[in-house]
Amino acid sequence: MLDVCLLGTGGMMPLPHRHLTSLMLRCSGSDILIDCGEGTQIAIKKKGWSANPIDVICFTHYHADHISGLVGLLLSIGNSERTRPITMIGPKGLKRVVESLRVIAPELPFEIIYRPLEEDEEHIDINGYTIHAFKLRHNVLCYGYSVELKRAGKFSVENATKLNIPKPLWGRLQKGEQVEYGGLVYTPDMVMGEQRRGLKVTYCTDTRPVPVIEKYARDADLFICEGMYAEKEKLAKAKQYKHMTFYEAAQIAANANPKQMWLTHYSPSLNDARPYLPQVRKIFPRTYLGKDGKSLELTFDKDE
Amino acid sequence: MLDVCLLGTGGMMPLPHRHLTSLMLRCSGSDILIDCGEGTQIAIKKKGWSANPIDVICFTHYHADHISGLVGLLLSIGNSERTRPITMIGPKGLKRVVESLRVIAPELPFEIIYRPLEEDEEHIDINGYTIHAFKLRHNVLCYGYSVELKRAGKFSVENATKLNIPKPLWGRLQKGEQVEYGGLVYTPDMVMGEQRRGLKVTYCTDTRPVPVIEKYARDADLFICEGMYAEKEKLAKAKQYKHMTFYEAAQIAANANPKQMWLTHYSPSLNDARPYLPQVRKIFPRTYLGKDGKSLELTFDKDE
Repeated sequence: MLDVCLLGTGGMMPLPHRHLTSLMLRCSGSDILIDCGEGTQIAIKKKGWSANPIDVICFTHYHADHISGLVGLLLSIGNSERTRPITMIGPKGLKRVVESLRVIAPELPFEIIYRPLEEDEEHIDINGYTIHAFKLRHNVLCYGYSVELKRAGKFSVENATKLNIPKPLWGRLQKGEQVEYGGLVYTPDMVMGEQRRGLKVTYCTDTRPVPVIEKYARDADLFICEGMYAEKEKLAKAKQYKHMTFYEAAQIAANANPKQMWLTHYSPSLNDARPYLPQVRKIFPRTYLGKDGKSLELTFDKDE
Repeated sequence: MLDVCLLGTGGMMPLPHRHLTSLMLRCSGSDILIDCGEGTQIAIKKKGWSANPIDVICFTHYHADHISGLVGLLLSIGNSERTRPITMIGPKGLKRVVESLRVIAPELPFEIIYRPLEEDEEHIDINGYTIHAFKLRHNVLCYGYSVELKRAGKFSVENATKLNIPKPLWGRLQKGEQVEYGGLVYTPDMVMGEQRRGLKVTYCTDTRPVPVIEKYARDADLFICEGMYAEKEKLAKAKQYKHMTFYEAAQIAANANPKQMWLTHYSPSLNDARPYLPQVRKIFPRTYLGKDGKSLELTFDKDE
């Protein structure tokens, strides 16, 4: 199961009614935060979630609206008696930036593990999920993230019985282990079906449209994409500041075919995005406007 | 005139309904901010004030709850087309701390002038007001601030007429200038009465009670004081963490006799401070509970 919450939807600066864009994923007991602008810890509390179980913090880039809430969050996590390490993932410069911000939080009761990104695309397996990072196109080095929760194939009782596999071994085979027992070797493929469809959430901000986004958003359960500008006539501005319009985001979604797309990272000048939605849905019908605290509980497909 | 707004009242960490303690003063067109925890820029917007005219930012100390909102605030001020410099005042280490935080805001369209504090008590004249800084007693180096708006004596038309002072010179004498005219020297004391009572706002957090607070809070129009703990039985905790109980703050006020005192910097564990107020008022009757956005417009006394 994967609980998703879009903590905020603001770009550039927080507003009284709009926190900065940040995404939180509760992923089978190990939580992930992507971006952490000023006020993120408040948004988590408003949602009624806890920052304590956050094991991984990913940064798209180091513009202040994506990281200025980090120190406050770390201190609050520290005050909640956490001692397990936190892994941070982000573009080159990660340790330098975080350590510099920590001038006002030099002592924390947990370790920080830095995992800087070096390639255009990277795949990090951690705590049972895979985080794919892929380089975007902004005015500074910036990455998108896709979090994937894989799902093993179905255990075949029929095969296990047919092959006379002792019942006490079934659980270990199901977990993917190879087992020796009574002089025989049993392998998971003897009882496990094809890997089944898992869950995937893809998050992209800040960027111009680039093909790699389609690749990672393809068939995602949820694609969250920046839409800095709602007005079609702001395309030139989007190009200038390396952001996207709603329509560009929708075109990516139309190509990638996720189950749904949420828009986020709205310009502070955008008061009400709703009037633009019908136009956007002409391009990708399953577009929804992100709003602060919007959440979704994703579950594995039911077996047929 | 001096407009005062207590932007937030929280200590340690921001809560959904409680911003971190920060004070803003609108002082004859030049604004002052004291402390700037995470979310301060949002609290300013919620109040409907603007961060753009802030000319001076004072820091009591560099614990995160008093400075973690600085970078976001500076960027937002920068986005509001400000180019005038901002003066920052704070304990030793000021430039090092602020520059380190600015790793995510290296470019700003205005200059920062650093004015670190070196003495136990300092008096800084700037933009027509005086900022008194005085060392407190916390677990790190920490200062309280008292902002004073002085008021010249009353201009005596009677004296000016009696002494045959030419009318075109009156305005300059009233501003405190010495004027030569027609071979004669005119000095302000010829026409100005005794200096009149001005306005004074005193702000103290985080600290144990120390005598210097009384000195600077004496007869203040408004004394804002930390009250981390409302419960009498938390005195030991207050001593341990170098904070105050409501009752200790009230005792300072009783000795210093300000026109009123507001409590602030509440512990996150304090949900409702109101039940404690009657007890506190037995010590200092003009005690009020600070709340987010609480403001007051101070004006000079009417002349008798």
